[in-house]
Amino acid sequence: MRQVGILGVGMTPFGISEKTNLELFGEAALEALDESGLEPSRMQALFLGNCLGAFEEGQLHMAPFAAAEVGLPVGAPATRFEAACATATVAARHAALLVAAGVYDVVLVGGVERAARMGTDLATTTFAMALDAYHEGPSGLTFPGVFAMAAHMYAAKYALPLPELKKHMARVAIKNHHHGTMNPLAQFQKEIDEETVLTGPMIADPLQLFDCCPFSDGAAAAVIAEEGIVARWGGPPVWVAGMGQASRGPLYLQQDLTRVTAREASVDQAYAQAGLTPADVDVVELHDCFTIAEILAVEGLGFYPPGQGYAAATSGETTFGGRVVVNPSGGLKAKGHPIGATGLAQVYEIVKQLRGQAGPRQVEGAKVGLVDTLGGDLGTVCNLILRN
Amino acid sequence: MRQVGILGVGMTPFGISEKTNLELFGEAALEALDESGLEPSRMQALFLGNCLGAFEEGQLHMAPFAAAEVGLPVGAPATRFEAACATATVAARHAALLVAAGVYDVVLVGGVERAARMGTDLATTTFAMALDAYHEGPSGLTFPGVFAMAAHMYAAKYALPLPELKKHMARVAIKNHHHGTMNPLAQFQKEIDEETVLTGPMIADPLQLFDCCPFSDGAAAAVIAEEGIVARWGGPPVWVAGMGQASRGPLYLQQDLTRVTAREASVDQAYAQAGLTPADVDVVELHDCFTIAEILAVEGLGFYPPGQGYAAATSGETTFGGRVVVNPSGGLKAKGHPIGATGLAQVYEIVKQLRGQAGPRQVEGAKVGLVDTLGGDLGTVCNLILRN
Repeated sequence: MRQVGILGVGMTPFGISEKTNLELFGEAALEALDESGLEPSRMQALFLGNCLGAFEEGQLHMAPFAAAEVGLPVGAPATRFEAACATATVAARHAALLVAAGVYDVVLVGGVERAARMGTDLATTTFAMALDAYHEGPSGLTFPGVFAMAAHMYAAKYALPLPELKKHMARVAIKNHHHGTMNPLAQFQKEIDEETVLTGPMIADPLQLFDCCPFSDGAAAAVIAEEGIVARWGGPPVWVAGMGQASRGPLYLQQDLTRVTAREASVDQAYAQAGLTPADVDVVELHDCFTIAEILAVEGLGFYPPGQGYAAATSGETTFGGRVVVNPSGGLKAKGHPIGATGLAQVYEIVKQLRGQAGPRQVEGAKVGLVDTLGGDLGTVCNLILRN
Repeated sequence: MRQVGILGVGMTPFGISEKTNLELFGEAALEALDESGLEPSRMQALFLGNCLGAFEEGQLHMAPFAAAEVGLPVGAPATRFEAACATATVAARHAALLVAAGVYDVVLVGGVERAARMGTDLATTTFAMALDAYHEGPSGLTFPGVFAMAAHMYAAKYALPLPELKKHMARVAIKNHHHGTMNPLAQFQKEIDEETVLTGPMIADPLQLFDCCPFSDGAAAAVIAEEGIVARWGGPPVWVAGMGQASRGPLYLQQDLTRVTAREASVDQAYAQAGLTPADVDVVELHDCFTIAEILAVEGLGFYPPGQGYAAATSGETTFGGRVVVNPSGGLKAKGHPIGATGLAQVYEIVKQLRGQAGPRQVEGAKVGLVDTLGGDLGTVCNLILRN
């Protein structure tokens, strides 16, 4: 297998947008293409992530239209992936695998979603379609409910009083909002404090409003190429060192929601391929759809043993100057979560960090970065390890 | 790249079903697994095709649930693909590419759809979402309209009187219904005649009811493996000799609907990889969503020059004993068209043909078979060439 590198990345502002999916995708894709120095006609395939275009715009089969939007050639297959919130990472992984395999030399990867403009009702309804439609959806469960259960189970399993856990969860939100203030593309660029979180409206006990990421519109993209093209490019290369993807069935098979077994399987694949361990990782963009989700993730990714990651944000170990910087972009929590774009926005951030182009939120000397994206009720996890 | 073979295939009856998507998928997948002689625990990944589960059952993110339904291991990534009617073929191609590349040794591929039970209104509405949502959908265009335009353009371009073209189109329907009478899994197993077609209700001039394939429920699956596993299997191997996939943007960029340029690009890739030409192909399952679509396909796949394929069914050249047997299964027209399953049902038929297991519809001495699946308004085409 050949080495695979990332040439260009692009990302729209995340938030509420008047643009169509294709316009958002085009904006991010053309920025990535521009940075790569390659014409669209050079792209040999498009791997596109999108979840809800059929509901939001009445657009299925979005990939060929997206390819045409930015001028890809007819012979370049354009393929849509959908893996709930892990959609874009899954698309990027398949792209990188096929470049590594020699099927393609250089490809475009993009993710796009309009989840803000569709309104809260339709967003909540369609997001919940990533739950098992026969056993979970009909019970009234939605995603805040899934992670609320996980928080209760976490508190019970580790004998942590819930008010104490909630204070640590609040610190995750405060940290990621603080990070977001340094990201001009983030949906929220405003500090919050403990009072903001703990006095917010209750969403799904114990999750309050500021424990939850927002609905967002946005897109992100990357140009991925084999080592020869990367070497000739001349820009600062970022390499795909390891990849993983794993799946898990419905909640009744999972039982212990404090351990995301798909994540453990996925990240193990990625660490093994990269020949690295959690101790080697300088910066992580991980799936903080809810504050408790970041706590589960820092444990699942191996930075803390199970049950010992809850105080990571409180202790300052996951911000600048800490042992590993988690979500310098602001994460899903503050940067926003346009679900089909999220994984590539994580890639965008890690690439900028490894190039030393992250401005005021730069993680000093970052050499190894990890992308972690979770889809559904712990059903899909996809990880990418990047290095410079 | 390693040789890739197909061990087991499975398929449900196509038609109207009371079963859920997961039940249909499970039925086809377990048949394929059973035929492969391998336990589900041996599968290293699932590649799943589904288009409309979110509308029909409220199920997005179906792949991990499908994997769990048949007992795949947690570490096996389950990935959903959506490429309109070409969905399952695109899933199968990505599976075969990753097995060829050595990423996986043996994987499960499945496609499933419930497009009959959702009712004609919702089916028509959601199918039309594969058209460009901003330029085509709002004009009132649906898929019968796209292919009706193609028929008119074909008649005009080749100066063929429309009534004459319609008689040749009717022969496609008559042939495929005849083939369907020999397929116990087909939705329609009943002969029709010219009168049936030419006196049917008008759907989109010049397409009448029997020019159109039905809405269908159903599933199909295959187990795909690298050459070593195929060699040890002991069953009659069928090899993936060539693959192609290509894309084309909206209709305003296509203009000449009589030439499916994505098909020409895709099948060229497949022929080149296989080192074969159209003359080598014994049997084809191609995308006859409408009768005119089969005429476009026999030309686009290289069996006839452009403008010279319209009489293929009339002359008997595309049935048993002809130069190439087209849609021995009955095709989408008579076998049915559960859109996310169709490509793998085509694979199922070609595998049975190449093994000599097709019973009364066996193409004698079939050695090379071609799968052709078209998604959207000529937007995606995916081809597989199989040989024994």
